[in-house]
Amino acid sequence: MIYWKNYPQLSLQLETVQKTLLATIKVKNPQTQAAILSLLSSGGKLLRPAYLLLFAELTSLDADKRIALASSIELLHTATLIHDDVIDKAETRRGVPTISHLYGNDVAVYAGDYLFVVIFKLMIKHALDLSNLSNRVDAMEKLLDGELGQMNLRFNTEQTISDYLNNISGKTAELFAQACAVAPFADGQDKLAKLSYDIGQNIGIAFQIMDDYLDYTADTTTFGKPVLADIRQGIYSAPVLFALSADENVADLLKKEDFEGVFARIKATHALEKTQHLARKYTRKALKLIEKLPENPVKSDIRQITENLLERKL
Amino acid sequence: MIYWKNYPQLSLQLETVQKTLLATIKVKNPQTQAAILSLLSSGGKLLRPAYLLLFAELTSLDADKRIALASSIELLHTATLIHDDVIDKAETRRGVPTISHLYGNDVAVYAGDYLFVVIFKLMIKHALDLSNLSNRVDAMEKLLDGELGQMNLRFNTEQTISDYLNNISGKTAELFAQACAVAPFADGQDKLAKLSYDIGQNIGIAFQIMDDYLDYTADTTTFGKPVLADIRQGIYSAPVLFALSADENVADLLKKEDFEGVFARIKATHALEKTQHLARKYTRKALKLIEKLPENPVKSDIRQITENLLERKL
Repeated sequence: MIYWKNYPQLSLQLETVQKTLLATIKVKNPQTQAAILSLLSSGGKLLRPAYLLLFAELTSLDADKRIALASSIELLHTATLIHDDVIDKAETRRGVPTISHLYGNDVAVYAGDYLFVVIFKLMIKHALDLSNLSNRVDAMEKLLDGELGQMNLRFNTEQTISDYLNNISGKTAELFAQACAVAPFADGQDKLAKLSYDIGQNIGIAFQIMDDYLDYTADTTTFGKPVLADIRQGIYSAPVLFALSADENVADLLKKEDFEGVFARIKATHALEKTQHLARKYTRKALKLIEKLPENPVKSDIRQITENLLERKL
Repeated sequence: MIYWKNYPQLSLQLETVQKTLLATIKVKNPQTQAAILSLLSSGGKLLRPAYLLLFAELTSLDADKRIALASSIELLHTATLIHDDVIDKAETRRGVPTISHLYGNDVAVYAGDYLFVVIFKLMIKHALDLSNLSNRVDAMEKLLDGELGQMNLRFNTEQTISDYLNNISGKTAELFAQACAVAPFADGQDKLAKLSYDIGQNIGIAFQIMDDYLDYTADTTTFGKPVLADIRQGIYSAPVLFALSADENVADLLKKEDFEGVFARIKATHALEKTQHLARKYTRKALKLIEKLPENPVKSDIRQITENLLERKL
């Protein structure tokens, strides 16, 4: 776990999570088995399990439960990635061919479904009682409802930054919020769970804005591939929305598919700087809330990891 | 519930299931909401909930649990239908446009995922304790593993009737088996659950063979549309497999995509009659096992409904 080399205890726990993930997948179809395992070991940072394990240090949960919960949140993330790749017709993910590209949409759709079931299996067998489980399921419902809700806004040039923030709250931030809150919640620490949830929400929102920002700055003279693909599908992230709100011609340029024109307006309206400022606002909110966590050696790790994560390249 | 008009009590219960299904779906995206509701009310027979409710008569489960379990099994069926339609690029289902066709694969994939979560929600909130739930999840894992397992065999002209039976055991029969067994299992009647599971398996296998048979007999001079689509995707059901095993030229004809030729061999090798006999074999097995159920007024309903279902057009 090279990304976590400065946090040896966390790194060890994440290795156990990694082993648990690989041991949990037992699909009859050998190709699907190989494809899921390869995705799970293709060097994702295990960010969500890491936050879960960090916040678990503030609880009295035993090691087995922590590992099971951390594994299940990474599986949930993985299941949504597999289904996202079907939807986006993506050919690679983290440098390896996607399941949908290698074996077709049929295998990819069922592989994601299979992971959903495995998630529940892990939660039921190792981690949660019925009332905790019920809360988890409500959270997953919220997450998927968020994914479905945002689809209304495709190609809508009237949407605002506030719509965008609403979308990424459901899409990205909910999973971070769950990662931070689930251990305190399972431990019965409702007040801490609420604070942790809010921290995770702000981290997730800042993380997604950063991601959308970096897509645009990968190459400064023209759109990068992911940006073009998104815009073509009617997905407008912060830079486009800031340009839309500052310059009434941008809506027309989008409709005419004049993407070079859109990019020129993004530059002229300082939309990228505004995006960066927006990300920073949520990063600061997250860091401010982290200060409210109870005193504990893990608190400075959470602060440091969050700063490193969100201030990369900013 | 016109299909169930001779069973007034069952028909009433199924109306409650129908209402529960509609009340359970609460998606923010109004189009998806409408699409799921329209699929749920498009006149499916509610076969699986019906079997669940019939077998529940042999238990002491209270009415609420029965309805929740019956609703969750229909939702599971519906979720797989929505994802199947994505995979098969189907444009209509039960005479209404599919979700994938109307709103795209993105909405359909997430709508199916959303239903998976709602299923767990229903089971947790209304029906099951943790150990029952754990058993349910194992069953769902088996079902999806079955779906994934069968994909290995596409375009494989060496596959046998035994492979086919193995596939449809996972794909279709498992859900019927669950429908029959879940109420006795939740009631702690393990022996009855085992017998009910076996009855459901045999009903499900016979049902799927019948379905595959009827696809071929819809038009006797040429292939029907669904048959052609299946064969083009490398899915070979019983009639093709019987022809393959009786005539060594069939494999070549399939490879050359000479589908008229394949159909001629299906006729010449009496593959349809063999398919019919195979279905009958499983129907008889199911009926024989039904006789072993404890004496109860519902027993003759189960027998009669099964005969009507499986002997249509045979």
